[in-house]
Amino acid sequence: MRTFDEYRILVEKRLPAMVPAVLYHARTIHDSMLYSLTAGGKRLRPVMMLAACELAGGDIQVAMPYACAIEFIHTYSLVHDDLPAMDDDELRRGKPTNHMIYGAGMATLAGDGLLNSAFEVMINDISGCPADMMKSRILAAKTIVEGSGVNGMIAGQVADIEAENAGETASEELLEFIHLNKTAALIKASIKAGLYLGGAGPELHKAMDEYSSQLGLAFQIADDILDVTGTTEEIGKPVGSDEAANKLTFVSVYGLDEARKKLHEHSQLAIKALDEIDGDTEFFRKLAEKLEKRSK
Amino acid sequence: MRTFDEYRILVEKRLPAMVPAVLYHARTIHDSMLYSLTAGGKRLRPVMMLAACELAGGDIQVAMPYACAIEFIHTYSLVHDDLPAMDDDELRRGKPTNHMIYGAGMATLAGDGLLNSAFEVMINDISGCPADMMKSRILAAKTIVEGSGVNGMIAGQVADIEAENAGETASEELLEFIHLNKTAALIKASIKAGLYLGGAGPELHKAMDEYSSQLGLAFQIADDILDVTGTTEEIGKPVGSDEAANKLTFVSVYGLDEARKKLHEHSQLAIKALDEIDGDTEFFRKLAEKLEKRSK
Repeated sequence: MRTFDEYRILVEKRLPAMVPAVLYHARTIHDSMLYSLTAGGKRLRPVMMLAACELAGGDIQVAMPYACAIEFIHTYSLVHDDLPAMDDDELRRGKPTNHMIYGAGMATLAGDGLLNSAFEVMINDISGCPADMMKSRILAAKTIVEGSGVNGMIAGQVADIEAENAGETASEELLEFIHLNKTAALIKASIKAGLYLGGAGPELHKAMDEYSSQLGLAFQIADDILDVTGTTEEIGKPVGSDEAANKLTFVSVYGLDEARKKLHEHSQLAIKALDEIDGDTEFFRKLAEKLEKRSK
Repeated sequence: MRTFDEYRILVEKRLPAMVPAVLYHARTIHDSMLYSLTAGGKRLRPVMMLAACELAGGDIQVAMPYACAIEFIHTYSLVHDDLPAMDDDELRRGKPTNHMIYGAGMATLAGDGLLNSAFEVMINDISGCPADMMKSRILAAKTIVEGSGVNGMIAGQVADIEAENAGETASEELLEFIHLNKTAALIKASIKAGLYLGGAGPELHKAMDEYSSQLGLAFQIADDILDVTGTTEEIGKPVGSDEAANKLTFVSVYGLDEARKKLHEHSQLAIKALDEIDGDTEFFRKLAEKLEKRSK
Protein backbone atom coordinates (compact mmCIF):
# COMPACT_ATOMS: atom_id res chain seq x y z
CA MET A 1 0.00 0.00 0.00
CA ARG A 2 1.16 3.52 -0.78
CA THR A 3 0.83 6.74 1.23
CA PHE A 4 -1.92 9.28 0.68
CA ASP A 5 0.52 11.60 -1.12
CA GLU A 6 1.75 8.85 -3.43
CA TYR A 7 -1.80 8.07 -4.52
CA ARG A 8 -2.60 11.78 -4.78
CA ILE A 9 0.34 12.44 -7.12
CA LEU A 10 -0.78 9.58 -9.39
CA VAL A 11 -4.28 11.10 -9.55
CA GLU A 12 -3.00 14.64 -10.17
CA LYS A 13 -0.93 13.40 -13.10
CA ARG A 14 -3.80 11.58 -14.75
CA LEU A 15 -6.70 13.94 -14.06
CA PRO A 16 -6.24 16.68 -16.71
CA ALA A 17 -5.73 14.12 -19.48
CA MET A 18 -9.06 12.47 -18.66
CA VAL A 19 -11.05 15.63 -19.50
CA PRO A 20 -12.45 15.04 -22.99
CA ALA A 21 -10.80 17.21 -25.67
CA VAL A 22 -13.35 19.77 -26.83
CA LEU A 23 -14.15 21.09 -30.32
CA TYR A 24 -12.89 24.54 -31.27
CA HIS A 25 -16.00 26.67 -30.74
CA ALA A 26 -16.69 25.20 -27.33
CA ARG A 27 -13.13 25.33 -26.00
CA THR A 28 -14.03 27.72 -23.16
CA ILE A 29 -15.79 24.94 -21.30
CA HIS A 30 -12.62 22.88 -21.40
CA ASP A 31 -10.75 25.76 -19.73
CA SER A 32 -13.55 26.21 -17.23
CA MET A 33 -13.70 22.51 -16.31
CA LEU A 34 -9.90 22.31 -16.03
CA TYR A 35 -9.81 25.48 -13.92
CA SER A 36 -11.91 23.92 -11.18
CA LEU A 37 -10.41 20.45 -11.55
CA THR A 38 -6.88 21.77 -11.02
CA ALA A 39 -7.71 24.39 -8.37
CA GLY A 40 -6.33 22.19 -5.60
CA GLY A 41 -8.28 19.97 -3.28
CA LYS A 42 -7.22 16.96 -1.31
CA ARG A 43 -8.24 14.37 -3.93
CA LEU A 44 -9.67 12.41 -1.01
CA ARG A 45 -12.24 10.47 -3.05
CA PRO A 46 -10.00 9.22 -5.88
CA VAL A 47 -7.18 8.46 -3.42
CA MET A 48 -9.55 6.38 -1.28
CA MET A 49 -10.76 4.54 -4.38
CA LEU A 50 -7.23 3.60 -5.45
CA ALA A 51 -6.33 2.54 -1.90
CA ALA A 52 -9.49 0.42 -1.61
CA CYS A 53 -8.69 -1.21 -4.94
CA GLU A 54 -5.18 -2.12 -3.70
CA LEU A 55 -6.51 -3.25 -0.34
CA ALA A 56 -8.65 -5.76 -2.28
CA GLY A 57 -5.57 -6.91 -4.20
CA GLY A 58 -6.44 -5.11 -7.45
CA ASP A 59 -4.41 -3.06 -9.94
CA ILE A 60 -4.82 0.69 -9.48
CA GLN A 61 -4.56 1.29 -13.22
CA VAL A 62 -7.91 -0.46 -13.56
CA ALA A 63 -9.42 1.92 -11.00
CA MET A 64 -7.84 5.10 -12.40
CA PRO A 65 -10.64 6.10 -14.85
CA TYR A 66 -13.23 5.66 -12.09
CA ALA A 67 -11.05 7.58 -9.62
CA CYS A 68 -10.86 10.49 -12.08
CA ALA A 69 -14.61 10.23 -12.74
CA ILE A 70 -15.43 10.58 -9.04
CA GLU A 71 -13.17 13.65 -8.79
CA PHE A 72 -15.05 15.10 -11.81
CA ILE A 73 -18.32 14.52 -9.94
CA HIS A 74 -17.02 16.00 -6.69
CA THR A 75 -15.72 19.04 -8.61
CA TYR A 76 -19.00 19.58 -10.51
CA SER A 77 -20.87 19.54 -7.19
CA LEU A 78 -18.59 22.27 -5.83
CA VAL A 79 -18.93 24.40 -9.00
CA HIS A 80 -22.73 24.23 -8.85
CA ASP A 81 -22.79 24.65 -5.05
CA ASP A 82 -20.82 27.90 -5.34
CA LEU A 83 -23.18 29.41 -7.95
CA PRO A 84 -25.05 32.62 -7.11
CA ALA A 85 -28.29 30.61 -7.24
CA MET A 86 -26.94 28.24 -4.56
CA ASP A 87 -24.37 29.26 -1.87
CA ASP A 88 -23.11 32.29 -3.83
CA ASP A 89 -19.47 31.81 -2.81
CA GLU A 90 -16.72 33.92 -4.34
CA LEU A 91 -13.80 31.92 -3.01
CA ARG A 92 -13.05 28.20 -3.01
CA ARG A 93 -9.72 26.86 -1.80
CA GLY A 94 -8.47 30.44 -1.70
CA LYS A 95 -9.15 31.03 -5.41
CA PRO A 96 -12.02 32.75 -7.20
CA THR A 97 -14.87 30.31 -7.79
CA ASN A 98 -15.60 29.13 -11.33
CA HIS A 99 -18.44 31.57 -11.99
CA MET A 100 -16.32 34.52 -10.80
CA ILE A 101 -13.98 33.79 -13.71
CA TYR A 102 -16.26 32.33 -16.40
CA GLY A 103 -19.69 33.71 -15.48
CA ALA A 104 -22.62 31.82 -13.99
CA GLY A 105 -23.88 30.49 -17.35
CA MET A 106 -20.57 28.91 -18.30
CA ALA A 107 -20.04 27.64 -14.74
CA THR A 108 -23.44 25.91 -14.91
CA LEU A 109 -22.40 24.26 -18.17
CA ALA A 110 -18.94 23.40 -16.81
CA GLY A 111 -20.63 21.57 -13.94
CA ASP A 112 -22.93 19.77 -16.37
CA GLY A 113 -19.91 19.00 -18.53
CA LEU A 114 -17.94 17.54 -15.63
CA LEU A 115 -20.83 15.31 -14.59
CA ASN A 116 -21.41 14.15 -18.15
CA SER A 117 -17.67 13.61 -18.68
CA ALA A 118 -17.54 11.43 -15.58
CA PHE A 119 -20.04 9.09 -17.22
CA GLU A 120 -18.25 9.34 -20.54
CA VAL A 121 -14.98 8.23 -18.95
CA MET A 122 -16.67 5.29 -17.20
CA ILE A 123 -18.79 4.05 -20.10
CA ASN A 124 -15.80 4.32 -22.46
CA ASP A 125 -13.77 2.20 -20.10
CA ILE A 126 -16.56 -0.35 -19.76
CA SER A 127 -17.13 -0.49 -23.50
CA GLY A 128 -13.42 -1.03 -24.21
CA CYS A 129 -12.69 -3.79 -21.70
CA PRO A 130 -12.84 -7.56 -22.27
CA ALA A 131 -16.26 -9.13 -21.63
CA ASP A 132 -15.10 -11.17 -18.64
CA MET A 133 -13.85 -8.03 -16.88
CA MET A 134 -16.97 -5.95 -17.40
CA LYS A 135 -19.00 -6.94 -14.37
CA SER A 136 -16.80 -5.35 -11.70
CA ARG A 137 -16.51 -2.15 -13.75
CA ILE A 138 -20.26 -1.95 -14.24
CA LEU A 139 -20.79 -2.40 -10.49
CA ALA A 140 -18.24 0.33 -9.79
CA ALA A 141 -19.98 2.73 -12.19
CA LYS A 142 -23.38 1.86 -10.69
CA THR A 143 -22.05 2.50 -7.18
CA ILE A 144 -20.62 5.89 -8.18
CA VAL A 145 -23.76 6.97 -10.05
CA GLU A 146 -26.01 6.03 -7.14
CA GLY A 147 -23.71 7.80 -4.69
CA SER A 148 -23.85 11.01 -6.70
CA GLY A 149 -27.59 10.81 -7.42
CA VAL A 150 -30.89 11.97 -6.01
CA ASN A 151 -30.62 9.41 -3.22
CA GLY A 152 -27.00 10.28 -2.53
CA MET A 153 -25.03 13.49 -2.86
CA ILE A 154 -27.82 15.46 -4.56
CA ALA A 155 -30.29 14.47 -1.82
CA GLY A 156 -27.95 16.03 0.71
CA GLN A 157 -27.78 19.27 -1.26
CA VAL A 158 -31.55 19.39 -1.62
CA ALA A 159 -32.05 18.86 2.11
CA ASP A 160 -29.45 21.57 2.73
CA ILE A 161 -31.62 24.06 0.83
CA GLU A 162 -34.72 22.79 2.65
CA ALA A 163 -32.98 23.26 6.01
CA GLU A 164 -32.07 26.86 5.19
CA ASN A 165 -35.71 27.50 4.35
CA ALA A 166 -36.81 25.79 7.58
CA GLY A 167 -34.46 27.96 9.67
CA GLU A 168 -34.86 27.42 13.42
CA THR A 169 -37.22 24.51 13.01
CA ALA A 170 -34.64 22.29 11.31
CA SER A 171 -34.02 19.14 13.34
CA GLU A 172 -30.91 17.21 14.37
CA GLU A 173 -32.19 14.29 12.35
CA LEU A 174 -32.26 16.53 9.26
CA LEU A 175 -28.65 17.52 9.95
CA GLU A 176 -27.59 13.88 9.95
CA PHE A 177 -29.57 13.27 6.75
CA ILE A 178 -27.85 16.18 5.00
CA HIS A 179 -24.36 15.09 5.93
CA LEU A 180 -24.92 11.39 5.41
CA ASN A 181 -25.91 12.23 1.87
CA LYS A 182 -24.09 15.42 0.92
CA THR A 183 -20.62 14.20 1.84
CA ALA A 184 -20.69 10.65 3.13
CA ALA A 185 -22.54 9.15 0.14
CA LEU A 186 -19.76 9.94 -2.32
CA ILE A 187 -17.05 9.00 0.17
CA LYS A 188 -18.73 5.63 0.67
CA ALA A 189 -19.13 5.20 -3.07
CA SER A 190 -15.41 5.92 -3.62
CA ILE A 191 -14.36 3.13 -1.31
CA LYS A 192 -17.01 0.68 -2.50
CA ALA A 193 -16.22 1.25 -6.18
CA GLY A 194 -12.53 0.71 -5.42
CA LEU A 195 -13.36 -2.57 -3.70
CA TYR A 196 -15.38 -3.76 -6.70
CA LEU A 197 -12.58 -2.81 -9.08
CA GLY A 198 -10.07 -4.66 -6.90
CA GLY A 199 -12.26 -7.78 -6.74
CA ALA A 200 -13.06 -7.69 -3.01
CA GLY A 201 -15.11 -10.45 -1.38
CA PRO A 202 -18.25 -9.88 0.73
CA GLU A 203 -16.44 -9.73 4.10
CA LEU A 204 -14.10 -6.98 3.01
CA HIS A 205 -17.09 -5.08 1.57
CA LYS A 206 -18.93 -5.38 4.88
CA ALA A 207 -16.08 -4.15 7.06
CA MET A 208 -15.27 -1.28 4.72
CA ASP A 209 -18.94 -0.23 4.46
CA GLU A 210 -18.89 0.33 8.21
CA TYR A 211 -15.53 2.10 8.00
CA SER A 212 -16.66 4.47 5.27
CA SER A 213 -19.99 5.31 6.94
CA GLN A 214 -18.14 6.38 10.06
CA LEU A 215 -15.43 8.17 8.10
CA GLY A 216 -17.99 10.08 6.04
CA LEU A 217 -19.67 11.44 9.16
CA ALA A 218 -16.31 12.22 10.79
CA PHE A 219 -15.29 14.06 7.65
CA GLN A 220 -18.31 16.33 7.72
CA ILE A 221 -17.99 17.04 11.46
CA ALA A 222 -14.31 17.94 10.96
CA ASP A 223 -15.32 20.32 8.15
CA ASP A 224 -17.94 21.99 10.32
CA ILE A 225 -15.42 22.42 13.16
CA LEU A 226 -12.80 23.85 10.80
CA ASP A 227 -15.30 26.38 9.49
CA VAL A 228 -15.33 27.87 13.00
CA THR A 229 -11.80 27.24 14.27
CA GLY A 230 -9.65 27.29 11.10
CA THR A 231 -7.91 30.24 9.46
CA THR A 232 -9.04 31.55 6.07
CA GLU A 233 -5.77 30.17 4.71
CA GLU A 234 -6.42 26.67 6.05
CA ILE A 235 -9.99 26.38 4.78
CA GLY A 236 -9.70 28.46 1.58
CA LYS A 237 -12.83 30.51 2.28
CA PRO A 238 -13.82 33.09 4.87
CA VAL A 239 -13.91 31.72 8.45
CA GLY A 240 -17.43 31.34 9.76
CA SER A 241 -19.10 31.44 6.36
CA ASP A 242 -21.42 28.56 7.29
CA GLU A 243 -22.41 30.43 10.42
CA ALA A 244 -22.98 33.64 8.44
CA ALA A 245 -25.23 31.75 6.01
CA ASN A 246 -27.18 30.36 8.97
CA LYS A 247 -26.25 26.83 7.92
CA LEU A 248 -27.22 23.84 9.96
CA THR A 249 -23.86 22.35 11.04
CA PHE A 250 -22.71 19.93 13.72
CA VAL A 251 -21.24 22.91 15.59
CA SER A 252 -24.40 25.02 15.37
CA VAL A 253 -26.52 22.11 16.60
CA TYR A 254 -24.26 20.49 19.23
CA GLY A 255 -21.72 23.20 20.10
CA LEU A 256 -17.96 22.93 19.58
CA ASP A 257 -17.08 20.60 22.46
CA GLU A 258 -19.81 18.09 21.70
CA ALA A 259 -18.96 18.20 17.97
CA ARG A 260 -15.32 17.37 18.82
CA LYS A 261 -16.46 14.48 20.97
CA LYS A 262 -18.61 13.18 18.13
CA LEU A 263 -15.71 13.50 15.71
CA HIS A 264 -13.54 11.40 18.02
CA GLU A 265 -16.27 8.76 18.42
CA HIS A 266 -16.83 8.35 14.69
CA SER A 267 -13.09 8.26 13.94
CA GLN A 268 -12.64 5.53 16.56
CA LEU A 269 -15.55 3.52 15.20
CA ALA A 270 -14.04 3.79 11.71
CA ILE A 271 -10.69 2.50 12.96
CA LYS A 272 -12.39 -0.28 14.93
CA ALA A 273 -14.12 -1.50 11.76
CA LEU A 274 -10.68 -2.14 10.25
CA ASP A 275 -9.96 -4.80 12.91
CA GLU A 276 -12.20 -7.19 11.00
CA ILE A 277 -9.94 -7.01 7.96
CA ASP A 278 -7.14 -9.46 7.30
CA GLY A 279 -4.72 -7.26 5.35
CA ASP A 280 -2.71 -4.05 5.37
CA THR A 281 -5.19 -1.42 6.55
CA GLU A 282 -2.52 1.08 7.65
CA PHE A 283 -3.56 3.62 4.99
CA PHE A 284 -7.16 3.71 6.17
CA ARG A 285 -6.23 3.87 9.88
CA LYS A 286 -3.91 6.80 9.23
CA LEU A 287 -6.56 8.54 7.17
CA ALA A 288 -9.08 8.45 10.02
CA GLU A 289 -6.45 9.69 12.49
CA LYS A 290 -5.33 12.51 10.20
CA LEU A 291 -8.89 13.65 9.76
CA GLU A 292 -9.38 14.00 13.50
CA LYS A 293 -6.07 15.84 13.97
CA ARG A 294 -6.75 18.26 11.11
CA SER A 295 -9.55 19.94 13.02
CA LYS A 296 -7.75 20.17 16.37
CA MET B 1 -44.07 0.18 -37.13
CA ARG B 2 -46.33 2.38 -35.01
CA THR B 3 -47.29 6.01 -35.44
CA PHE B 4 -45.59 8.89 -33.63
CA ASP B 5 -48.52 9.19 -31.22
CA GLU B 6 -48.53 5.51 -30.42
CA TYR B 7 -44.85 5.62 -29.47
CA ARG B 8 -45.39 8.89 -27.60
CA ILE B 9 -48.16 7.43 -25.45
CA LEU B 10 -45.94 4.48 -24.53
CA VAL B 11 -43.20 6.89 -23.45
CA GLU B 12 -45.58 9.15 -21.49
CA LYS B 13 -46.83 6.12 -19.55
CA ARG B 14 -43.38 4.93 -18.59
CA LEU B 15 -41.57 8.21 -17.99
CA PRO B 16 -42.74 9.21 -14.47
CA ALA B 17 -42.10 5.72 -13.09
CA MET B 18 -38.48 5.85 -14.27
CA VAL B 19 -37.68 8.82 -12.00
CA PRO B 20 -35.89 7.34 -8.99
CA ALA B 21 -37.95 7.45 -5.79
CA VAL B 22 -36.39 9.99 -3.46
CA LEU B 23 -35.82 9.90 0.30
CA TYR B 24 -38.12 11.92 2.51
CA HIS B 25 -36.01 15.02 3.23
CA ALA B 26 -35.15 15.48 -0.42
CA ARG B 27 -38.61 14.91 -1.85
CA THR B 28 -38.83 18.42 -3.33
CA ILE B 29 -36.36 17.49 -6.03
CA HIS B 30 -38.61 14.63 -7.07
CA ASP B 31 -41.49 17.09 -7.52
CA SER B 32 -39.23 19.50 -9.35
CA MET B 33 -37.89 16.85 -11.75
CA LEU B 34 -41.38 15.48 -12.38
CA TYR B 35 -42.75 18.99 -12.96
CA SER B 36 -40.47 19.58 -15.92
CA LEU B 37 -40.62 16.00 -17.18
CA THR B 38 -44.40 16.09 -17.38
CA ALA B 39 -44.76 19.69 -18.61
CA GLY B 40 -45.49 18.55 -22.13
CA GLY B 41 -43.09 18.36 -25.02
CA LYS B 42 -43.18 16.31 -28.17
CA ARG B 43 -41.11 13.39 -26.82
CA LEU B 44 -39.33 13.50 -30.16
CA ARG B 45 -36.09 11.91 -28.94
CA PRO B 46 -37.51 8.88 -27.10
CA VAL B 47 -40.07 8.29 -29.87
CA MET B 48 -37.31 8.29 -32.49
CA MET B 49 -35.29 5.90 -30.37
CA LEU B 50 -38.16 3.41 -30.09
CA ALA B 51 -38.91 3.71 -33.81
CA ALA B 52 -35.23 3.17 -34.71
CA CYS B 53 -35.16 0.11 -32.47
CA GLU B 54 -38.19 -1.35 -34.25
CA LEU B 55 -36.83 -0.40 -37.67
CA ALA B 56 -33.81 -2.56 -36.81
CA GLY B 57 -36.11 -5.41 -35.80
CA GLY B 58 -35.69 -5.00 -32.05
CA ASP B 59 -38.09 -5.05 -29.10
CA ILE B 60 -39.05 -1.58 -27.89
CA GLN B 61 -39.21 -2.76 -24.27
CA VAL B 62 -35.43 -3.18 -24.45
CA ALA B 63 -35.08 0.42 -25.63
CA MET B 64 -37.54 1.93 -23.14
CA PRO B 65 -35.09 2.70 -20.28
CA TYR B 66 -32.74 4.40 -22.74
CA ALA B 67 -35.65 6.30 -24.32
CA CYS B 68 -36.65 7.61 -20.89
CA ALA B 69 -33.01 8.42 -20.12
CA ILE B 70 -32.67 10.58 -23.22
CA GLU B 71 -35.86 12.46 -22.31
CA PHE B 72 -34.38 13.03 -18.83
CA ILE B 73 -31.28 14.49 -20.50
CA HIS B 74 -33.27 16.65 -22.90
CA THR B 75 -35.39 17.91 -19.99
CA TYR B 76 -32.39 18.72 -17.79
CA SER B 77 -30.88 20.74 -20.65
CA LEU B 78 -34.07 22.81 -20.89
CA VAL B 79 -34.25 23.36 -17.12
CA HIS B 80 -30.65 24.61 -17.01
CA ASP B 81 -31.05 26.59 -20.26
CA ASP B 82 -34.00 28.49 -18.78
CA LEU B 83 -32.12 29.48 -15.59
CA PRO B 84 -31.56 33.18 -14.84
CA ALA B 85 -27.82 32.57 -15.31
CA MET B 86 -28.48 31.25 -18.84
CA ASP B 87 -31.43 32.34 -21.03
CA ASP B 88 -33.51 33.60 -18.10
CA ASP B 89 -36.82 32.36 -19.52
CA GLU B 90 -40.00 32.52 -17.47
CA LEU B 91 -42.15 30.38 -19.75
CA ARG B 92 -41.53 27.01 -21.37
CA ARG B 93 -44.26 25.22 -23.31
CA GLY B 94 -46.70 27.82 -21.97
CA LYS B 95 -45.97 26.99 -18.33
CA PRO B 96 -43.75 28.69 -15.75
CA THR B 97 -40.19 27.40 -16.03
CA ASN B 98 -38.82 25.17 -13.29
CA HIS B 99 -36.97 27.91 -11.41
CA MET B 100 -40.07 30.14 -11.41
CA ILE B 101 -41.77 27.48 -9.29
CA TYR B 102 -38.93 25.91 -7.29
CA GLY B 103 -36.27 28.65 -7.25
CA ALA B 104 -32.99 28.73 -9.16
CA GLY B 105 -31.09 26.65 -6.61
CA MET B 106 -33.55 23.77 -6.67
CA ALA B 107 -33.87 24.02 -10.47
CA THR B 108 -30.09 23.70 -10.78
CA LEU B 109 -30.22 20.58 -8.60
CA ALA B 110 -33.26 19.21 -10.48
CA GLY B 111 -31.27 19.49 -13.72
CA ASP B 112 -28.30 17.76 -12.11
CA GLY B 113 -30.67 15.14 -10.72
CA LEU B 114 -32.23 14.46 -14.12
CA LEU B 115 -28.83 14.06 -15.78
CA ASN B 116 -27.60 11.79 -13.00
CA SER B 117 -30.86 9.79 -13.06
CA ALA B 118 -30.47 9.25 -16.79
CA PHE B 119 -27.18 7.48 -16.13
CA GLU B 120 -28.67 5.66 -13.15
CA VAL B 121 -31.44 4.25 -15.34
CA MET B 122 -29.00 3.12 -18.01
CA ILE B 123 -26.33 1.60 -15.76
CA ASN B 124 -29.01 -0.21 -13.75
CA ASP B 125 -30.37 -1.70 -16.95
CA ILE B 126 -26.89 -2.71 -18.11
CA SER B 127 -26.02 -4.21 -14.76
CA GLY B 128 -29.23 -6.25 -14.66
CA CYS B 129 -29.15 -7.76 -18.16
CA PRO B 130 -27.63 -11.10 -19.20
CA ALA B 131 -23.93 -10.93 -20.17
CA ASP B 132 -24.54 -11.78 -23.83
CA MET B 133 -26.95 -8.84 -24.20
CA MET B 134 -24.74 -6.24 -22.58
CA LYS B 135 -22.74 -5.07 -25.57
CA SER B 136 -25.57 -3.36 -27.48
CA ARG B 137 -26.81 -1.67 -24.31
CA ILE B 138 -23.33 -0.40 -23.46
CA LEU B 139 -22.99 0.99 -27.00
CA ALA B 140 -26.39 2.68 -26.68
CA ALA B 141 -25.41 4.28 -23.35
CA LYS B 142 -22.05 5.38 -24.80
CA THR B 143 -23.81 6.94 -27.79
CA ILE B 144 -26.24 8.84 -25.56
CA VAL B 145 -23.54 10.05 -23.17
CA GLU B 146 -21.34 11.28 -26.02
CA GLY B 147 -24.32 12.99 -27.65
CA SER B 148 -25.15 14.87 -24.47
CA GLY B 149 -21.54 15.71 -23.60
CA VAL B 150 -18.97 18.43 -24.11
CA ASN B 151 -18.55 17.38 -27.75
CA GLY B 152 -22.29 17.14 -28.29
CA MET B 153 -25.21 18.98 -26.78
CA ILE B 154 -23.17 20.87 -24.18
CA ALA B 155 -20.74 22.07 -26.87
CA GLY B 156 -23.68 23.63 -28.69
CA GLN B 157 -24.81 25.44 -25.56
CA VAL B 158 -21.31 26.71 -24.87
CA ALA B 159 -20.96 28.02 -28.43
CA ASP B 160 -24.37 29.65 -28.04
CA ILE B 161 -23.06 31.67 -25.09
CA GLU B 162 -19.89 32.47 -27.04
CA ALA B 163 -21.95 33.68 -30.00
CA GLU B 164 -23.97 36.01 -27.81
CA ASN B 165 -20.72 37.47 -26.51
CA ALA B 166 -19.37 37.81 -30.06
CA GLY B 167 -22.51 39.68 -31.20
CA GLU B 168 -22.27 40.96 -34.78
CA THR B 169 -19.00 39.20 -35.47
CA ALA B 170 -20.48 35.70 -35.05
CA SER B 171 -20.13 33.69 -38.26
CA GLU B 172 -22.47 31.44 -40.27
CA GLU B 173 -20.08 28.60 -39.59
CA LEU B 174 -20.55 29.19 -35.86
CA LEU B 175 -24.32 29.03 -36.35
CA GLU B 176 -24.03 25.61 -37.96
CA PHE B 177 -21.70 24.46 -35.18
CA ILE B 178 -24.17 25.54 -32.52
CA HIS B 179 -27.11 23.78 -34.09
CA LEU B 180 -25.26 20.67 -35.14
CA ASN B 181 -24.35 20.23 -31.50
CA LYS B 182 -27.08 21.85 -29.45
CA THR B 183 -29.97 20.01 -31.08
CA ALA B 184 -28.77 17.62 -33.74
CA ALA B 185 -26.26 15.78 -31.55
CA LEU B 186 -28.93 14.41 -29.22
CA ILE B 187 -31.35 13.72 -32.09
CA LYS B 188 -28.63 11.72 -33.83
CA ALA B 189 -27.80 9.92 -30.60
CA SER B 190 -31.48 8.99 -30.09
CA ILE B 191 -31.68 7.25 -33.45
CA LYS B 192 -28.25 5.65 -33.19
CA ALA B 193 -28.88 4.30 -29.70
CA GLY B 194 -32.20 2.85 -30.93
CA LEU B 195 -30.41 1.13 -33.80
CA TYR B 196 -27.87 -0.43 -31.43
CA LEU B 197 -30.63 -1.63 -29.12
CA GLY B 198 -32.47 -3.13 -32.06
CA GLY B 199 -29.35 -4.89 -33.34
CA ALA B 200 -28.95 -2.95 -36.62
CA GLY B 201 -26.20 -3.83 -39.11
CA PRO B 202 -23.64 -1.36 -40.49
CA GLU B 203 -25.65 -0.44 -43.62
CA LEU B 204 -28.72 0.58 -41.65
CA HIS B 205 -26.48 2.58 -39.30
CA LYS B 206 -24.92 4.41 -42.26
CA ALA B 207 -28.20 5.36 -43.94
CA MET B 208 -29.77 6.47 -40.67
CA ASP B 209 -26.68 8.51 -39.70
CA GLU B 210 -27.24 10.56 -42.85
CA TYR B 211 -30.99 10.78 -42.19
CA SER B 212 -30.52 11.98 -38.63
CA SER B 213 -27.86 14.56 -39.50
CA GLN B 214 -30.22 16.13 -42.02
CA LEU B 215 -33.21 15.84 -39.72
CA GLY B 216 -31.33 17.45 -36.85
CA LEU B 217 -30.51 20.51 -38.94
CA ALA B 218 -34.04 20.67 -40.36
CA PHE B 219 -35.40 20.52 -36.83
CA GLN B 220 -33.36 23.49 -35.67
CA ILE B 221 -34.21 25.56 -38.76
CA ALA B 222 -37.90 24.82 -38.23
CA ASP B 223 -37.57 25.95 -34.59
CA ASP B 224 -35.89 29.19 -35.64
CA ILE B 225 -38.63 29.89 -38.21
CA LEU B 226 -41.38 29.15 -35.67
CA ASP B 227 -39.82 31.58 -33.22
CA VAL B 228 -40.62 34.33 -35.75
CA THR B 229 -43.80 33.11 -37.45
CA GLY B 230 -45.54 31.06 -34.74
CA THR B 231 -48.03 32.22 -32.15
CA THR B 232 -47.17 32.26 -28.46
CA GLU B 233 -49.64 29.41 -28.08
CA GLU B 234 -47.90 27.27 -30.70
CA ILE B 235 -44.39 27.72 -29.39
CA GLY B 236 -45.10 28.00 -25.67
CA LYS B 237 -42.97 31.09 -25.15
CA PRO B 238 -43.17 34.70 -26.31
CA VAL B 239 -42.90 35.11 -30.10
CA GLY B 240 -39.57 36.57 -31.20
CA SER B 241 -37.77 35.78 -27.93
CA ASP B 242 -34.67 34.58 -29.81
CA GLU B 243 -34.63 37.82 -31.77
CA ALA B 244 -35.09 39.85 -28.60
CA ALA B 245 -32.14 38.03 -27.01
CA ASN B 246 -30.06 38.82 -30.12
CA LYS B 247 -29.64 35.09 -30.73
CA LEU B 248 -27.86 33.82 -33.77
CA THR B 249 -30.57 31.87 -35.64
CA PHE B 250 -31.03 30.59 -39.19
CA VAL B 251 -33.58 33.34 -39.70
CA SER B 252 -31.34 36.12 -38.36
CA VAL B 253 -28.45 34.97 -40.54
CA TYR B 254 -30.22 33.95 -43.78
CA GLY B 255 -33.59 35.69 -43.61
CA LEU B 256 -36.96 33.92 -43.56
CA ASP B 257 -37.19 32.89 -47.24
CA GLU B 258 -33.71 31.45 -47.39
CA ALA B 259 -34.25 29.65 -44.05
CA ARG B 260 -37.42 28.03 -45.45
CA LYS B 261 -35.51 26.94 -48.55
CA LYS B 262 -32.82 25.38 -46.35
CA LEU B 263 -35.44 23.61 -44.27
CA HIS B 264 -36.91 22.10 -47.43
CA GLU B 265 -33.48 21.02 -48.70
CA HIS B 266 -32.50 19.29 -45.46
CA SER B 267 -35.90 17.58 -45.13
CA GLN B 268 -35.58 16.25 -48.68
CA LEU B 269 -32.04 15.03 -48.06
CA ALA B 270 -33.26 13.24 -44.93
CA ILE B 271 -36.03 11.51 -46.89
CA LYS B 272 -33.63 10.62 -49.68
CA ALA B 273 -31.34 8.87 -47.21
CA LEU B 274 -34.20 6.49 -46.40
CA ASP B 275 -34.15 5.14 -50.01
CA GLU B 276 -31.07 3.13 -49.11
CA ILE B 277 -33.00 1.20 -46.48
CA ASP B 278 -34.68 -2.10 -47.13
CA GLY B 279 -37.55 -1.95 -44.63
CA ASP B 280 -40.56 0.03 -43.45
CA THR B 281 -39.25 3.60 -43.19
CA GLU B 282 -42.69 5.22 -43.35
CA PHE B 283 -42.42 6.57 -39.79
CA PHE B 284 -39.21 8.40 -40.52
CA ARG B 285 -40.43 9.80 -43.88
CA LYS B 286 -43.57 11.15 -42.24
CA LEU B 287 -41.53 12.65 -39.42
CA ALA B 288 -39.40 14.68 -41.84
CA GLU B 289 -42.48 15.84 -43.75
CA LYS B 290 -44.32 16.81 -40.59
CA LEU B 291 -41.36 18.84 -39.41
CA GLU B 292 -41.35 20.88 -42.58
CA LYS B 293 -45.10 21.46 -42.50
CA ARG B 294 -45.08 22.48 -38.83
CA SER B 295 -43.24 25.70 -39.58
CA LYS B 296 -45.24 26.70 -42.66
